[in-house]
Amino acid sequence: MSITERIWVPTDQSPAQRFREVRELTDLLADRLSPEDQTPQSMTEASPAKWHRAHVTWFFEEFVLRRDPGYVVYDESYRYLFNSYYEAVGERHPRPDRGLVTRPGVDDITHYRNYVDAAMESALTRGALDDAALDLVELGCNHEQQHQELLLMDVKHLFSTIPLTPGPIYVDRELDAPSSPGPMTWRSVAGGVTEVGAGPDDGFSYDNEGPRHRVFLEDFEIAERPVTNADWLEFIADEGYRRHELWLSDGWAHLRQTGWQAPGYWHRDDDGQWTTYTLSGRRPLDPGEPVLHVSFYEADAYARWAGARLPTEFEWETAASTLGAQRSELLDPNRCHPRSVAGPGGAAMIGNVWEWTSSAYLPFPGFVPANGAVGEYNGKFMSDQHVLRGAAAITPRGHERVTYRNFFPAPSRWVFTGLRLAR
Amino acid sequence: MSITERIWVPTDQSPAQRFREVRELTDLLADRLSPEDQTPQSMTEASPAKWHRAHVTWFFEEFVLRRDPGYVVYDESYRYLFNSYYEAVGERHPRPDRGLVTRPGVDDITHYRNYVDAAMESALTRGALDDAALDLVELGCNHEQQHQELLLMDVKHLFSTIPLTPGPIYVDRELDAPSSPGPMTWRSVAGGVTEVGAGPDDGFSYDNEGPRHRVFLEDFEIAERPVTNADWLEFIADEGYRRHELWLSDGWAHLRQTGWQAPGYWHRDDDGQWTTYTLSGRRPLDPGEPVLHVSFYEADAYARWAGARLPTEFEWETAASTLGAQRSELLDPNRCHPRSVAGPGGAAMIGNVWEWTSSAYLPFPGFVPANGAVGEYNGKFMSDQHVLRGAAAITPRGHERVTYRNFFPAPSRWVFTGLRLAR
Amino acid sequence: MSITERIWVPTDQSPAQRFREVRELTDLLADRLSPEDQTPQSMTEASPAKWHRAHVTWFFEEFVLRRDPGYVVYDESYRYLFNSYYEAVGERHPRPDRGLVTRPGVDDITHYRNYVDAAMESALTRGALDDAALDLVELGCNHEQQHQELLLMDVKHLFSTIPLTPGPIYVDRELDAPSSPGPMTWRSVAGGVTEVGAGPDDGFSYDNEGPRHRVFLEDFEIAERPVTNADWLEFIADEGYRRHELWLSDGWAHLRQTGWQAPGYWHRDDDGQWTTYTLSGRRPLDPGEPVLHVSFYEADAYARWAGARLPTEFEWETAASTLGAQRSELLDPNRCHPRSVAGPGGAAMIGNVWEWTSSAYLPFPGFVPANGAVGEYNGKFMSDQHVLRGAAAITPRGHERVTYRNFFPAPSRWVFTGLRLAR
Amino acid sequence: MSITERIWVPTDQSPAQRFREVRELTDLLADRLSPEDQTPQSMTEASPAKWHRAHVTWFFEEFVLRRDPGYVVYDESYRYLFNSYYEAVGERHPRPDRGLVTRPGVDDITHYRNYVDAAMESALTRGALDDAALDLVELGCNHEQQHQELLLMDVKHLFSTIPLTPGPIYVDRELDAPSSPGPMTWRSVAGGVTEVGAGPDDGFSYDNEGPRHRVFLEDFEIAERPVTNADWLEFIADEGYRRHELWLSDGWAHLRQTGWQAPGYWHRDDDGQWTTYTLSGRRPLDPGEPVLHVSFYEADAYARWAGARLPTEFEWETAASTLGAQRSELLDPNRCHPRSVAGPGGAAMIGNVWEWTSSAYLPFPGFVPANGAVGEYNGKFMSDQHVLRGAAAITPRGHERVTYRNFFPAPSRWVFTGLRLAR
Repeated sequence: MSITERIWVPTDQSPAQRFREVRELTDLLADRLSPEDQTPQSMTEASPAKWHRAHVTWFFEEFVLRRDPGYVVYDESYRYLFNSYYEAVGERHPRPDRGLVTRPGVDDITHYRNYVDAAMESALTRGALDDAALDLVELGCNHEQQHQELLLMDVKHLFSTIPLTPGPIYVDRELDAPSSPGPMTWRSVAGGVTEVGAGPDDGFSYDNEGPRHRVFLEDFEIAERPVTNADWLEFIADEGYRRHELWLSDGWAHLRQTGWQAPGYWHRDDDGQWTTYTLSGRRPLDPGEPVLHVSFYEADAYARWAGARLPTEFEWETAASTLGAQRSELLDPNRCHPRSVAGPGGAAMIGNVWEWTSSAYLPFPGFVPANGAVGEYNGKFMSDQHVLRGAAAITPRGHERVTYRNFFPAPSRWVFTGLRLAR
Repeated sequence: MSITERIWVPTDQSPAQRFREVRELTDLLADRLSPEDQTPQSMTEASPAKWHRAHVTWFFEEFVLRRDPGYVVYDESYRYLFNSYYEAVGERHPRPDRGLVTRPGVDDITHYRNYVDAAMESALTRGALDDAALDLVELGCNHEQQHQELLLMDVKHLFSTIPLTPGPIYVDRELDAPSSPGPMTWRSVAGGVTEVGAGPDDGFSYDNEGPRHRVFLEDFEIAERPVTNADWLEFIADEGYRRHELWLSDGWAHLRQTGWQAPGYWHRDDDGQWTTYTLSGRRPLDPGEPVLHVSFYEADAYARWAGARLPTEFEWETAASTLGAQRSELLDPNRCHPRSVAGPGGAAMIGNVWEWTSSAYLPFPGFVPANGAVGEYNGKFMSDQHVLRGAAAITPRGHERVTYRNFFPAPSRWVFTGLRLAR
Repeated sequence: MSITERIWVPTDQSPAQRFREVRELTDLLADRLSPEDQTPQSMTEASPAKWHRAHVTWFFEEFVLRRDPGYVVYDESYRYLFNSYYEAVGERHPRPDRGLVTRPGVDDITHYRNYVDAAMESALTRGALDDAALDLVELGCNHEQQHQELLLMDVKHLFSTIPLTPGPIYVDRELDAPSSPGPMTWRSVAGGVTEVGAGPDDGFSYDNEGPRHRVFLEDFEIAERPVTNADWLEFIADEGYRRHELWLSDGWAHLRQTGWQAPGYWHRDDDGQWTTYTLSGRRPLDPGEPVLHVSFYEADAYARWAGARLPTEFEWETAASTLGAQRSELLDPNRCHPRSVAGPGGAAMIGNVWEWTSSAYLPFPGFVPANGAVGEYNGKFMSDQHVLRGAAAITPRGHERVTYRNFFPAPSRWVFTGLRLAR
Repeated sequence: MSITERIWVPTDQSPAQRFREVRELTDLLADRLSPEDQTPQSMTEASPAKWHRAHVTWFFEEFVLRRDPGYVVYDESYRYLFNSYYEAVGERHPRPDRGLVTRPGVDDITHYRNYVDAAMESALTRGALDDAALDLVELGCNHEQQHQELLLMDVKHLFSTIPLTPGPIYVDRELDAPSSPGPMTWRSVAGGVTEVGAGPDDGFSYDNEGPRHRVFLEDFEIAERPVTNADWLEFIADEGYRRHELWLSDGWAHLRQTGWQAPGYWHRDDDGQWTTYTLSGRRPLDPGEPVLHVSFYEADAYARWAGARLPTEFEWETAASTLGAQRSELLDPNRCHPRSVAGPGGAAMIGNVWEWTSSAYLPFPGFVPANGAVGEYNGKFMSDQHVLRGAAAITPRGHERVTYRNFFPAPSRWVFTGLRLAR
């Protein structure tokens, strides 16, 4: 069954409307960046903003437009330049060198985007695409949404390395006033054999979210809100970063090597006040916000310190399904930052921060990758990564799902990561 | 309940007999190594043989003998030199520098062993140890058995780097004649909610093997023998090491970086014949032996090529429990090498080669580390490692268990690793 | 005696005219680069073009304008961002991170340049600078000229890494047609005790060019033209890159590690034709041009292969003084590439390519660094670098001198380096 | 003219006597080391003691014995194992892996030595060697003497890394009581055109010591004693390791990276007392001894701090020739450590510590490497190394010469290095 035959819950947009809306959001995010901002790569894991803009465009050209033998490729060399990791497509520009490609420049990429947009709009509006192609359009839209989040993560990382911290980029309004989180409360969830994962009638999902399958869970409890900055300050005050017995061995080694003493982007001023760098500039820490930019190692150590643990991804999904579809903050280009857990919906499981689970990123029983080169999208990364569930304040609306499996290596901190306790 | 109160299945030895026997086997293995052989460290993951001999001795001194305030420590500096990774015990000599410690020398370590042996024998025979101490003796014996296997792995790696390949070290008899494996056959195992892991009445086990708990399994099939060298030669012939679509992304990157073209220790002569380095010297490859020294990446790629997959550790354990307690080759100091799967018991699940599973090494639900510093034995390594089940031809007899969870990082090849398919 | 009291041979410009002309040339060179082109750093040794533009401006602000207590600093943080290596001035932005500073952007740097230019022009035209300050202006002009050459080297390196080789940047006219070098001829130079180095009456020079002092030279011969591409093709054809006996040990190790098989920027097409990347795009190799982008190791190996040697810097200077003041190609922003040795003046010792000498970069007897922080300009680099003499086709006119001591580490190839034989 | 035709000043030994004496000293030095001590390699620059013993033996086999077609090579694989860096001889075991070759063991190496000794003695006593071969014997004896010093340097480095610092290895007698150096006094040396280097009638010398040639020197002064520990303590007290303006740029970077705060092997106890590790164990610092184990960077910084400079190698040689042939401490296997400058001969220029000069290690005018593979002995290292003159307290007697050019990279500290000031 094709994705487009499924019930697509959050929207009744036509594919053309959907495509246009997604593409426009990318442009909106990039418009606030200068050509200089769009060029460098601040670490191997990150990519230049203009590379993101070109790569998501290449995705449509490679997987949708090239299906039409009459399509005239914009520039054959872009296949080499803007392929990310698809071995089946051929050789690629080395990932660590993405920040050196000053030409094509920002304007060239804009021309490329316009060219592909025109071809896509034409194909979509004249009904030239079959179901398989429409599925790839939907995949390409989701892919671009994922890169919108990556672009924001990467630009935040880049800006944080600049000595003259750039001021507010992505804000038109003031952030919230400091808030106070309530006490941690717990909800019981009944165990037993339960079903998890995305099924064929659930609308679009990535291949790694299925098949829907049975697991056995013991009864468990899950926290009604994520861990907050206020909680984390207690962990720091209680020497959390100095007590080896709280840490996994790899985590402790990483901590010793990096000198971690607080979450990513935190800074303690000379007067002892904590600030954090945001896409709206450096700001005092809000105790009521969920803690952000912690690695899996830190999340795991915190949970041990708190006498709790991280939930498995199956516990998380079961709890989230039980608790209903409420969302906390998703992407608002004028904000790009979590909201306090004390506000309305602030403690909901989907939005604000990605939540580390205790689960390794492994295939579900019966997992089959998608056909063709896009089968490399998810499956080949299933080793030594950790599952995050939920969504973050920079995840585009409509891209979040209760079955969504995000995954990153344990030391990652530039992702918008937090945690929620279980026990 | 103390371990010593449990039913200890494989033996009715007294703790003193058990202790003595384990210690003697270490000496037997080391006796075939010169002082030079016992000194270097061929890679960071490996340790010098004389370090192994001292470290296992230190374990008894640190965790058993020091409980007696009257015990006179052999040399206080040995706590620094021979602690492996126990943060709770204090600072340690840096792991990568173990091969530079020429003093204490081999004879000094022998004196140290004798000193601790005498103190242990005295304590054991005069009944001076309480149950908690006796549990630690049993843990120490298992610990030393584990290091016997490590010593053999490490010495094999060291010898393999020497241009003048040393001849037979651990062999008094000829290895078997080349053999032919039978075709791959499969056994069906029924799924459902099933119990896995070590329970309190199962005799000694490490903390990471418990608690016994329920999991849900779908029906599955498991191969009746491990993958053999003959199988692997087909994989090579079919370009298995050149087809990216068979590999995990990390595995493919690792392959490109290292140039892997065959399992560890394999060598193709100028006339195209394959040999493999063994602890009995370099020998022609026996098609009927289980493939040995493959990384998790290779095992995973092979399974994909074969249209199958690796079993989860729970499938593996359920199958092994169902199939019964038969053993294939365990440690014989005059052989130290697997036997053909075609021979009697050669295809059994426990022995010959460790079998990679698809499971990440994670805590079982309700896992609680052992008390005290020995709680660091297993739990703190539960990230980014992969579970192996079974045992190998260098695993000491009595150390193997159906619930045993061995674990190593995905690229590891100096371990005696193989695989068995599931589907 | 102040520099400004000396006879300044090549020009009778006023300091203000001199300042203005130097600054304008930097702008001219940068105008051909997009904001993207000016941002990245293609290797640690290189710097972004916009960094060069800011750093040379900072030099005047730091060392000239700040002498006036009434001067209002443009932005205090620029002292941190644009100090290159002056320890006496304070902490600096880490060199490898220069390519990540997207803000201040290209326009901000232009504003900074304009601000400092206005202040400098005002000070220069109203006669507000004493002799010491005027000396620093002259030093700053030479410093900026040196960075004009570095900017071109760095941008050439950056562009050469881009898969879509950018076309002509710095050319309005066609390069020359292929030419044929004449045979190598030699000139005898008489030895004895001779004077070398810059004296107080020789006009501006860097501190490292003095004091003028006596050395003893044996009689020697020096080639009348530099080694050409045609010569180098013979070296390659004679297996020059495969014969260890021609190479210094460090050079051979470097060759094996890097895989060098030809000078920098050379490429052999599938049909065996050699091309070279230039600031006017990729072009067929001209046999008559001096070889360019060879390391000291290659220059030394070539000389050994040719049965000759590199001259010492004292032989070079003595020969150049004897042979007179003729120049070959110096910086022409519409060309930026050497001319054939066969053309008029093409074989002259000053211009076209820097010429490696056999001399290590060491202080002359009695060397005293300049006063203050600018004393760090040259002296502190006097270890493990090699002296180059002459000038290159990207050296600004008026910056070249017969006593000029350029210096780089032995493996450097992005410099416009060549060689001339002695025997 | 053959070396053996020259007047060999320090000895009238026959080649056979000379050979035997040199070989016996190596055995004497190695006898104090256990098999474990002889096996590891504590850093890439160092080699295992048993490797040194085998390599010097290989030198005679490769360059002398193999000239006789009837000679039966001991083990062909040793050519691969024990060749150090002679490309002309063929492939070599990788240098960083020397410490892993446990087989051949110490006893095997002894057998190898005995075998080659017997063949050499036979050839020498029956007069079977022509002049060219006898020259190579002499070269081999010098080579082995050089390795005797390297063996002691390397073993000192290895032992210094062992937490349980081994006690006295090379001492039968007590070291001297602490002493007090006299004040620094200076001697004037007249400049002019002077001859330096080894000439054909000067007895044995390495190829890099010639040809004898003329240089021009200005008048200079040289210190009558080397810099002492007492001097160095003043440098430390005056913040010598914290003042960037004293250091070369590379030296300062090295200091910041390594954290150098004192010479190699120095240690400040909790009570502020300095000790130094010696081949006779750790000992309180003797103020009167010449400072030992300083890098070129430190020597250069010290000289700048002291308002002086290092001498060039030509100044050093001219001064040493002028001052006469007096020796300070040379190798005494029962001591292996410098003597106080206050004692008889303690301040002499040859012995005690190698003295850094300001000269880069470059070929003398007209330098021609020795014929054949031994031409790789010295010449190919002539880049980015620094000349040391004199000799050290571990240099074998008869190996020291006024023209001897020792050379090491600037950061080297495991050499027995010190310095003497000039101005």
